[in-house]
Amino acid sequence: MRTRLRQAPHPVVAKELIAAGIDADSASFGNVVRLNQVHAVLLDRAGIVSREQAQALLRVYDELARMGPGGLEFDLDLEDIHLNVETFVIGRLGRDVGGRMHTGRSRNDLNATMARLQARERIVAIVERAIALRQTLHQQAARHAASVMTGYTHSQPAQPITLGYYLGAVSDALGRDVRRVMRAYDTANFSPLGAGALAGSGYALDRHLASRLLGFAGLVENSLDAVASRDYLVELAAALAGLAVTISRLAQELYVWASDEYGFVEFGDDVCIVSSIMPQKKNPITLEHCKSKAGHVVGALVAALMATHAAPFTNNRDGNRELPAAVARSLAETDTILQLMTATLAGMTVHTGRMLDATRANFSTMTELADLLVREYGVPFRAAHELVASLVLDTVERNLRSDAIAPAEVVHRARQALGITVDEADVRRALDPRQVLEGRATTGSPAPRHVRAMLRRGRSEVRVDERWIARQRASAAAADGELQAEVVRVLAYPDGATPSPTRG
Amino acid sequence: MRTRLRQAPHPVVAKELIAAGIDADSASFGNVVRLNQVHAVLLDRAGIVSREQAQALLRVYDELARMGPGGLEFDLDLEDIHLNVETFVIGRLGRDVGGRMHTGRSRNDLNATMARLQARERIVAIVERAIALRQTLHQQAARHAASVMTGYTHSQPAQPITLGYYLGAVSDALGRDVRRVMRAYDTANFSPLGAGALAGSGYALDRHLASRLLGFAGLVENSLDAVASRDYLVELAAALAGLAVTISRLAQELYVWASDEYGFVEFGDDVCIVSSIMPQKKNPITLEHCKSKAGHVVGALVAALMATHAAPFTNNRDGNRELPAAVARSLAETDTILQLMTATLAGMTVHTGRMLDATRANFSTMTELADLLVREYGVPFRAAHELVASLVLDTVERNLRSDAIAPAEVVHRARQALGITVDEADVRRALDPRQVLEGRATTGSPAPRHVRAMLRRGRSEVRVDERWIARQRASAAAADGELQAEVVRVLAYPDGATPSPTRG
Amino acid sequence: MRTRLRQAPHPVVAKELIAAGIDADSASFGNVVRLNQVHAVLLDRAGIVSREQAQALLRVYDELARMGPGGLEFDLDLEDIHLNVETFVIGRLGRDVGGRMHTGRSRNDLNATMARLQARERIVAIVERAIALRQTLHQQAARHAASVMTGYTHSQPAQPITLGYYLGAVSDALGRDVRRVMRAYDTANFSPLGAGALAGSGYALDRHLASRLLGFAGLVENSLDAVASRDYLVELAAALAGLAVTISRLAQELYVWASDEYGFVEFGDDVCIVSSIMPQKKNPITLEHCKSKAGHVVGALVAALMATHAAPFTNNRDGNRELPAAVARSLAETDTILQLMTATLAGMTVHTGRMLDATRANFSTMTELADLLVREYGVPFRAAHELVASLVLDTVERNLRSDAIAPAEVVHRARQALGITVDEADVRRALDPRQVLEGRATTGSPAPRHVRAMLRRGRSEVRVDERWIARQRASAAAADGELQAEVVRVLAYPDGATPSPTRG
Amino acid sequence: MRTRLRQAPHPVVAKELIAAGIDADSASFGNVVRLNQVHAVLLDRAGIVSREQAQALLRVYDELARMGPGGLEFDLDLEDIHLNVETFVIGRLGRDVGGRMHTGRSRNDLNATMARLQARERIVAIVERAIALRQTLHQQAARHAASVMTGYTHSQPAQPITLGYYLGAVSDALGRDVRRVMRAYDTANFSPLGAGALAGSGYALDRHLASRLLGFAGLVENSLDAVASRDYLVELAAALAGLAVTISRLAQELYVWASDEYGFVEFGDDVCIVSSIMPQKKNPITLEHCKSKAGHVVGALVAALMATHAAPFTNNRDGNRELPAAVARSLAETDTILQLMTATLAGMTVHTGRMLDATRANFSTMTELADLLVREYGVPFRAAHELVASLVLDTVERNLRSDAIAPAEVVHRARQALGITVDEADVRRALDPRQVLEGRATTGSPAPRHVRAMLRRGRSEVRVDERWIARQRASAAAADGELQAEVVRVLAYPDGATPSPTRG
Repeated sequence: MRTRLRQAPHPVVAKELIAAGIDADSASFGNVVRLNQVHAVLLDRAGIVSREQAQALLRVYDELARMGPGGLEFDLDLEDIHLNVETFVIGRLGRDVGGRMHTGRSRNDLNATMARLQARERIVAIVERAIALRQTLHQQAARHAASVMTGYTHSQPAQPITLGYYLGAVSDALGRDVRRVMRAYDTANFSPLGAGALAGSGYALDRHLASRLLGFAGLVENSLDAVASRDYLVELAAALAGLAVTISRLAQELYVWASDEYGFVEFGDDVCIVSSIMPQKKNPITLEHCKSKAGHVVGALVAALMATHAAPFTNNRDGNRELPAAVARSLAETDTILQLMTATLAGMTVHTGRMLDATRANFSTMTELADLLVREYGVPFRAAHELVASLVLDTVERNLRSDAIAPAEVVHRARQALGITVDEADVRRALDPRQVLEGRATTGSPAPRHVRAMLRRGRSEVRVDERWIARQRASAAAADGELQAEVVRVLAYPDGATPSPTRG
Repeated sequence: MRTRLRQAPHPVVAKELIAAGIDADSASFGNVVRLNQVHAVLLDRAGIVSREQAQALLRVYDELARMGPGGLEFDLDLEDIHLNVETFVIGRLGRDVGGRMHTGRSRNDLNATMARLQARERIVAIVERAIALRQTLHQQAARHAASVMTGYTHSQPAQPITLGYYLGAVSDALGRDVRRVMRAYDTANFSPLGAGALAGSGYALDRHLASRLLGFAGLVENSLDAVASRDYLVELAAALAGLAVTISRLAQELYVWASDEYGFVEFGDDVCIVSSIMPQKKNPITLEHCKSKAGHVVGALVAALMATHAAPFTNNRDGNRELPAAVARSLAETDTILQLMTATLAGMTVHTGRMLDATRANFSTMTELADLLVREYGVPFRAAHELVASLVLDTVERNLRSDAIAPAEVVHRARQALGITVDEADVRRALDPRQVLEGRATTGSPAPRHVRAMLRRGRSEVRVDERWIARQRASAAAADGELQAEVVRVLAYPDGATPSPTRG
Repeated sequence: MRTRLRQAPHPVVAKELIAAGIDADSASFGNVVRLNQVHAVLLDRAGIVSREQAQALLRVYDELARMGPGGLEFDLDLEDIHLNVETFVIGRLGRDVGGRMHTGRSRNDLNATMARLQARERIVAIVERAIALRQTLHQQAARHAASVMTGYTHSQPAQPITLGYYLGAVSDALGRDVRRVMRAYDTANFSPLGAGALAGSGYALDRHLASRLLGFAGLVENSLDAVASRDYLVELAAALAGLAVTISRLAQELYVWASDEYGFVEFGDDVCIVSSIMPQKKNPITLEHCKSKAGHVVGALVAALMATHAAPFTNNRDGNRELPAAVARSLAETDTILQLMTATLAGMTVHTGRMLDATRANFSTMTELADLLVREYGVPFRAAHELVASLVLDTVERNLRSDAIAPAEVVHRARQALGITVDEADVRRALDPRQVLEGRATTGSPAPRHVRAMLRRGRSEVRVDERWIARQRASAAAADGELQAEVVRVLAYPDGATPSPTRG
Repeated sequence: MRTRLRQAPHPVVAKELIAAGIDADSASFGNVVRLNQVHAVLLDRAGIVSREQAQALLRVYDELARMGPGGLEFDLDLEDIHLNVETFVIGRLGRDVGGRMHTGRSRNDLNATMARLQARERIVAIVERAIALRQTLHQQAARHAASVMTGYTHSQPAQPITLGYYLGAVSDALGRDVRRVMRAYDTANFSPLGAGALAGSGYALDRHLASRLLGFAGLVENSLDAVASRDYLVELAAALAGLAVTISRLAQELYVWASDEYGFVEFGDDVCIVSSIMPQKKNPITLEHCKSKAGHVVGALVAALMATHAAPFTNNRDGNRELPAAVARSLAETDTILQLMTATLAGMTVHTGRMLDATRANFSTMTELADLLVREYGVPFRAAHELVASLVLDTVERNLRSDAIAPAEVVHRARQALGITVDEADVRRALDPRQVLEGRATTGSPAPRHVRAMLRRGRSEVRVDERWIARQRASAAAADGELQAEVVRVLAYPDGATPSPTRG
């Protein structure tokens, strides 16, 4: 093919650019074959090749499919997988037939289509992993819907919540991350095939049919846009970066809760390592990787964005090789992060006693105490807030825990400062984290009944996402079925005897 | 308020954290008032304050609305705008009434809601700017739908296209970028109000009503998620980064086309600067800024992602101050980029003669010459390709332009190499860029008729986006109308005389 | 000046590009004047202007220096500060004299020189801030050189250390960060002046003299490199990013140690904020900002790197406007981070009792117990390790703290498992964190005597850095003195009567 | 070893964390052995093991060195390479001897030391590659020291330069990049060995000797700092990012110059690829990869910075696994970039005629024409500038090239506008790019004599860098020699008979 050139590729070009590209494409060899089948069907329909030629081509493609990429001896002088396949086909069928297979197309639209097919597959796979994580979150959340713990803001004890409430919040955030990943699928799911090098072609090839046989939702219409754009991959990388950051937050918090000082949770031995010298150690390293691998995912996003920064708006290696390489890294790291976090959460033991005890000690019911005075005794909120603040300060200075506050003391202070008479039983309820939680009134609160309702909603979201996965797979399979039917049709009938296609 | 604390804020805290926050929030003072009005309505409905108290509060809010932030003397000891407003209100109404305004809410849900209201406004504004750019692209594309130019791949001449085709491709890519920005609106458009500090409250406040009065599509249900998450801002920043990169590609290409050597385009004097010493110079600096400002937008995305990297999943300054600050920068830079590119394109002069001449000279019709042999004379594509490749090589070595190729020479070579007789008129047509373009057959090709069809589609997309803008603004106005009606209702009737609300 | 152009700048160009540039340069107006003085001296020496003309120019520059930028009415049509100054000078002296001031130079080398002068000043200022932080670390480290705490790895208790040891480690890391910042100064400290637009000039202007009068260490020799490169700013931004990440690590750890559960440290009220509703809260927000502002610093580095990514290697706005804008942001954020952390640490209270108690409880002396068996009783390390591991496991399962381990129990197990007789007193020492620390033998260990030695080394590093600051300031002052002497000389003598310069 | 744990590592932990780590460390197996030898020498010297035990250990290490990592069957349950090696040694020598090899050290200081040894090797290798690129630049620059071309600013023709001048400027910038890389070596070149897990040890091990035997310049003294810090890797990654951006600028410019429209340069067939369908194409893809791979290098820097963002300041996987993985990617991509650019430049053909012709046509001598009037005829610069600007404008409007300007016309205009008589020969010289270049007077100008002087300076810088490489390698070899001498010494003498060491 390199007739225009008089030198073989330089070793670094051969190794780092050509061989690397062939390796990447070999991993999607099924799609290489599929694209050739689609094109043969189109050439046949348009009468650009004869029925016999189309049949010969399809038979060799069938051979290739059975062989897999291992059956080809790649010649790096041929620059990529497509020209290697063409050379193989010419070897089988001779130049007069084999030399027609590339009519009316280009490596550029082939590569653009390959990238979108691959993106679709990988997005479905990563969504599946993320769903597994959400399901694990839901399992633990269901188990701990009523397990009292302290809710923190700014890392300081704030108000009582439950662990199920916390895990449900993270799951909801993950749900939005997943939806962004799924939308990248929708963006990817358009067909660039038929765009040629950048300017379509003079052959009457049916781009809509090609799109349908590959299960796409429609065309990337402008043929230059079709070969120049990989924005769906940047969109995907951005969605994954957001997902990785969400998980890094959960990881950070579990990491702290697993400390000796908090002692709220403990992880399975299968996700920990020992120390080579410190006999007491059991190190939750998966959480460290969850946090720091987020850096790789963000870094890959930067690499993807920079790949086509200030690059001409057309087909070039910046967009069709380096950008996808960055996103492949992003997918691989995110996949590991998701597996690590799922495994870590699945084996997590919760020390509910310590969590409850901390909540009793750390003044996190003080807001409710103020609210009690407002709600039941008509005290202005700001006045109630100040009364309780002074109570807190005095208790802290006496080095006491909040559960050492005597209800009578509150009654006394309320009378002195506000001139009102507060019922001791009311105070006792306000100081008990469990009762505080039961009394939460607003939608979306940590009251266990609300937590369970939100979990039901979260689980139904996951079921919707599972159906989405099933639908995408079914749709790909249906398109493939239609393609194979077309192939069978071409192979079955001599020229002139084609039955009408069932659709379109 | 800092009764719990015995020191004023440190000067660097006061200046960089508190004053900076108050400045940012003052810019959305209308929303500060709006949130107070909504809350007063809710407190009234729930009977947490009396009708008279609600009326007093609403009257002071009205005064605040008329005054604007300039009417407040901000005390940095009060830490933020909300406590400053509360202090002002207490100053007007006394503590017994003013001290009730913050009942059942927190700065955390206020800040979370402020951020979403602001995001909605800014997204609509940036979409409007992006639409202006697309419209300018469409105007130039329509003007040059048939202006022949060379399509390049890898910066080398490839095949004839038209300038309108190129600009249409970029507009289509921008269209996808804009849609991503709009989807960030959809993600943002849920109400965190009523989430309190992180755990809702024990007051029966109607979160759904609050959401409706602010024009949100629904709730961020889990109250911890509501105060912990700013993912819609990261989604926005990512969409803007993609948009900036798309524009950087256009900028790069225009920058090269404006060179003396290409001489394809020239820009208005209003977007160029001179040299202080080189009298001949006219420098298209807006394109340089379009390219390099993309770096700020990507950098701001990194800052936004890192802001909550490994931060606890709860309310904290990482998420509610630093993350939004990064995204505000992203919006500001993108806004400038969009304006710069729109101004640059609007005044662009195109040297169509030079573009056509280059296309005649630079062998970009050679693919069509090969295709001619395939299509009309049944030559296998690969054989045709090689015949033409050898013709190109010989012509280049004789230092000739492609329009120096004599049709007869092609006829001669075809006879010699392939044994076929080619019609000279066919060859002449294949060598004429205009006729090549007319002969493009596939959907989405650069044939002027296809270019015009795609432009119609592009323009209708823009009209859809314009309607989207109108709809969001109408929806915000309608919600505001409903809020003001509620305010009027509370103000108009004494306690016990409230008419039924018209909705809900 | 815009004689070549027939339109005023477009509003967005005027506001975002020109006005923004003039604002940035006005902040360094002293350097604007200085560069004009240097150039007048050079023009005088080379005889390009007459002595009288040089004197007239220098007198106007003196007027400008006294006036400051506030005295100029900036005309945005003049594009930048330099042409505005020139117009002012021509207004004062007429075109025949004023029109000579820009002879043999260009805005390009002026801007390149301005940027380096400004970088020098800012680097010195930020180093000073970083030194203040190290000094605060050293004060706390000295106070707590022997305050026992647990050293953690993977967030799990590992071995006893002291707080002074920990803070000293962070200070050492900061010391390396600071040194990187200082090296950016060395890279910046070369003179691009005289490079003209990109190709020097035909005037015999003495670039070495110009360099000396501005206090530079030498020339950026190649004139194209001189106007094209801002690599010292990227180097600076990278050093600051590393510094910010180091501080984020300290911030994270202090943040956790300040939790209710750890309770190791507490911060001054001046760096905390309250809650609007939770009376017990005192939130250490400065640490959150120290962590999340690191994102801005890293983002600014990305912006700086991307600014000239794929930009031509020459003078352009990418390098001379957008890149410096990114680095200015990096400096501002780092400055705030340094101040925040210094203020936070300065007011930190340490609960040494809790730190010691945790160290007694959490098995962090177990390595020393194993080491004792190895060192004093000849047991192979791995065997000792396993004996202690089994002891730990049993103790943990009985829900006991490590200080509940009876020495006799160790003696018993050693006899049973290893057949050796261990002295109970030895065991007691090995289980006491203080004695473990005293027994640390290697250089750089947490033994208080080592900690104090390292602190002395750290303090002497800081003194070296302080002298560096003093030296840079003295050097800049000396150069300025030499420049003013040159100015005085030119102003004092009529043409032909110049005394020999004192140097060079 | 995992006696404390009761489960094998989870599959994802085993594959992604443990196996990945063992793979990475196996690539530096020589250093694994070296570290064991050093430690055996230290244990022997300190009398912690007997002479016989030391000899036995050293003999097994020798066996390991000969076997290589392929000789070990890695057990993933052992978590890393060091515990696998220890298990192998215990298998050979029994637990009584083999179980002593890990006395007084930890995986943490081993890993910290491994990372620094590897960094040193890789920095030397990458510097060597960068030197090769500078040498190639120098060869082309020497060839084209006097090859006239246009110097551009803002992509518009500015003033005449030479290609050698341009390439020399880029080489100077690269020289600074290389120096930054070398400084990362200096930062890396300190020994963490002996720091133990984070707190040194109670054994009297000589850290200074260990440092010397590994060729380090000194200690990372504080043992916590020693295991917690990987800042030298971030410094390296930042230097590489700067280098990659510098190369991206050169690549961008060559890419444009290789266009059909510029036609200034052409690249070897070995670095180009063809089109699958466009017979005329020859695509310079290496330049595209040089530009877009810079994104990977910047992304890896972001990943490295984020790895320890907000991570505790101690040993953890964030710093000791994920951060180095990011930097390894940075090194690999930079290595490819350097090779690609070197190969591309080495085979570059320059069309000097086209470059000269463009310079004659494009008004780039106009500054010199103005300068002529100033220098030789005393015209104020601004007046000269305006006269020439008006001449340019008129010429451009008549669609003429600058070499169509008649000297007599200039004489005429000068007389009319300024009342002076200019010599036509002077004008002719000012309009000739070659003579303009010869007349450049300032240091560092594009006058060929200056270009050649700068090239000599550049070449001598490269020689200095080559000597630096030689010195580092010699120093590593010398240290290794000293280590092997120590090993031989221990092996040669029975206990008590050790000769005094030659040094220390």
